Amino acid sequence: MTETPRRLADLPTPALVLDRARLSRNIQAMTDRYRALGVRLRPHLKTAKSVDVARMAVDGHFGGIAVSTLKEAEHFAANGFRDILYAVCVSPAKLDQAARLIKTGVALTLITDDLDAAKAIAARGKELSVVFDVLVEIDCGEKRSGVPVESDTLMAIARTLHAGPGSRLAGILVHAGHSYACRTLEAVAEVAEIERATGARAAERLKTAGLPCGTVSVGSTPTALHGKRYDGVTEVRCGVYMFGDLFQSEIGSCGEGDIAVSVLSSVIGQRRPENRVLIDAGALALSKDRSTANTPHDLGFGRVVDLSGTTGLGAVSVVGVHQEHGMVEGRTPLPFDRLPVGARVRVLPNHACLTSAAYDRYHVVDGSDEIVAVWPRCNGW
Amino acid sequence: MTETPRRLADLPTPALVLDRARLSRNIQAMTDRYRALGVRLRPHLKTAKSVDVARMAVDGHFGGIAVSTLKEAEHFAANGFRDILYAVCVSPAKLDQAARLIKTGVALTLITDDLDAAKAIAARGKELSVVFDVLVEIDCGEKRSGVPVESDTLMAIARTLHAGPGSRLAGILVHAGHSYACRTLEAVAEVAEIERATGARAAERLKTAGLPCGTVSVGSTPTALHGKRYDGVTEVRCGVYMFGDLFQSEIGSCGEGDIAVSVLSSVIGQRRPENRVLIDAGALALSKDRSTANTPHDLGFGRVVDLSGTTGLGAVSVVGVHQEHGMVEGRTPLPFDRLPVGARVRVLPNHACLTSAAYDRYHVVDGSDEIVAVWPRCNGW
Repeated sequence: MTETPRRLADLPTPALVLDRARLSRNIQAMTDRYRALGVRLRPHLKTAKSVDVARMAVDGHFGGIAVSTLKEAEHFAANGFRDILYAVCVSPAKLDQAARLIKTGVALTLITDDLDAAKAIAARGKELSVVFDVLVEIDCGEKRSGVPVESDTLMAIARTLHAGPGSRLAGILVHAGHSYACRTLEAVAEVAEIERATGARAAERLKTAGLPCGTVSVGSTPTALHGKRYDGVTEVRCGVYMFGDLFQSEIGSCGEGDIAVSVLSSVIGQRRPENRVLIDAGALALSKDRSTANTPHDLGFGRVVDLSGTTGLGAVSVVGVHQEHGMVEGRTPLPFDRLPVGARVRVLPNHACLTSAAYDRYHVVDGSDEIVAVWPRCNGW
Repeated sequence: MTETPRRLADLPTPALVLDRARLSRNIQAMTDRYRALGVRLRPHLKTAKSVDVARMAVDGHFGGIAVSTLKEAEHFAANGFRDILYAVCVSPAKLDQAARLIKTGVALTLITDDLDAAKAIAARGKELSVVFDVLVEIDCGEKRSGVPVESDTLMAIARTLHAGPGSRLAGILVHAGHSYACRTLEAVAEVAEIERATGARAAERLKTAGLPCGTVSVGSTPTALHGKRYDGVTEVRCGVYMFGDLFQSEIGSCGEGDIAVSVLSSVIGQRRPENRVLIDAGALALSKDRSTANTPHDLGFGRVVDLSGTTGLGAVSVVGVHQEHGMVEGRTPLPFDRLPVGARVRVLPNHACLTSAAYDRYHVVDGSDEIVAVWPRCNGW
């Protein structure tokens, strides 16, 4: 309706803010780590869902990315990315959409953990005149998806994909999602080693059987940050590290001062008797993610900081949400005079992926409240 | 990229499905109730965020609607709605946007519970050459927003708004959000009576002081459904009743067979040893709302039913979510043969407002799996 304001102080709220300095620092640290390790990094764009962020994340690496939806794959492909891993087990009904993308010249890799799905992929590829590159997903203890590494099913899926004719066995994928349940960095390092060893063992089984295994892809932000060795691994995937969030901070994957994404919000009410203010960031603006519920500090639905993005308000968090209302409380008396109706605050999210998904764009700042760019997101399916 | 498929069986998943027959029935029941009561119904569009649904909901009523964001207000105004209540306490920075809408001829009503905000509204209206119609929000026990009915603050806000010059005191608004905490219909009826009596008492105070009080607006879906009397009330607001959801079903506001909105999803993995399947509806597709956690039946992140939308799978629900994965389990052995990878299911949501917000459109069905319409939603801010 009108031009985007140039300062956070003038932006309609709630709005999603991205701190480019923190983003750059987080990305550079991971880039430096993987260049030093000599291991390929495949940034996962499920968190950022942004071409602008993706370009920063692949800089200095081989250019491949991971995505969580085919819509993301199409979006990044349309913006120049040519090596894309769709890192969720594919449903056969999505193969036609995947084939259309491959025919535009994109090196799209799929994953599966199901023998019948592998057969469907091999058959449908032939019908569609493409060859699908497919990784077999291995479970390393999370019990979400993936076959057991010592299972006959692994070999049956691998042989099916290798036989084709509409598929090619591209290798192995492992995701140690249970690293998020760790509460010490030593525990994360142990899970990282299990993830690595599982991938390496699966590759050994394929090679012993005379099957190809070009790719051994592992990763999650905690295991990518805290693993000690990556031998036997060809590439590491991770995504949340770019933004960080309160949950990652609580489990030691970043500091609270590294969190690059926040929700700009306005005070819409005061309740002094209850030591509470209301803000216009509620369940939709923050998400109902409660992943800090069982971490050292329960930060409710997000930590509230001042407009500058620092922790200038003390131990203040969003303790409850309604659709468009956030209830803000502190452990000590709130500075009500600094929080009149209309005052602006920023909320650091529990879970960057979930909170960001409510917005169609980032308002990018870089060390001041000036909005230096607006970057679109690719939401939905 | 391609045309929308004509059947749910061909629709890319996850996708949001709206059952028009159930929607019509839910809307008709509320319409009949309020026409019989002789009380004006102002449908709240925060759940549906759809012009098509709004047209059905106002049919037979006076045409006014409530919204939860100014973006919704603009969207509905652009589609012919002329009497719009923005039912969240307004931040002064939003007044310029509100004034632009009023200048297009929309009868937009704002609300506030803050004296400084009331002063800002009265002053800013004059600067912008509009007169803002404003309701004073009264708390009736939820302690979210609203001033106490017997407070001096109520009278001070009312006098400020009445004095103008850029504002007009339009009346009173009460929202008994704590009706959601009730676990019996008798308890809901009691809260409804408190909500009604609070509104009536606030109006009495204004009139006794010689102040106008044209509107006494009350409502929430439970209190709108189960109140016994509405004397002293001029209009009732509610929104979730159109769709229903598992939480509303658990607290008795609808039956599970009345739930009109669901998420179409595909099976993407089986884990027979754990009696579990994985679907492609996870935290983003369902939301992380856990409002059934403390109801008679904990339905996890949603009840899983078959493609027809009935409960043909038994007591099966989504027990855990990752960003794009839902973990489905049952209390009895799952019918794995009916749930191969690629099979389609529908997930009834815990909370219709939160789940629907992840989608930009509804795929409308009406008694079969044929998609009879696609209705856009107005998301974000």
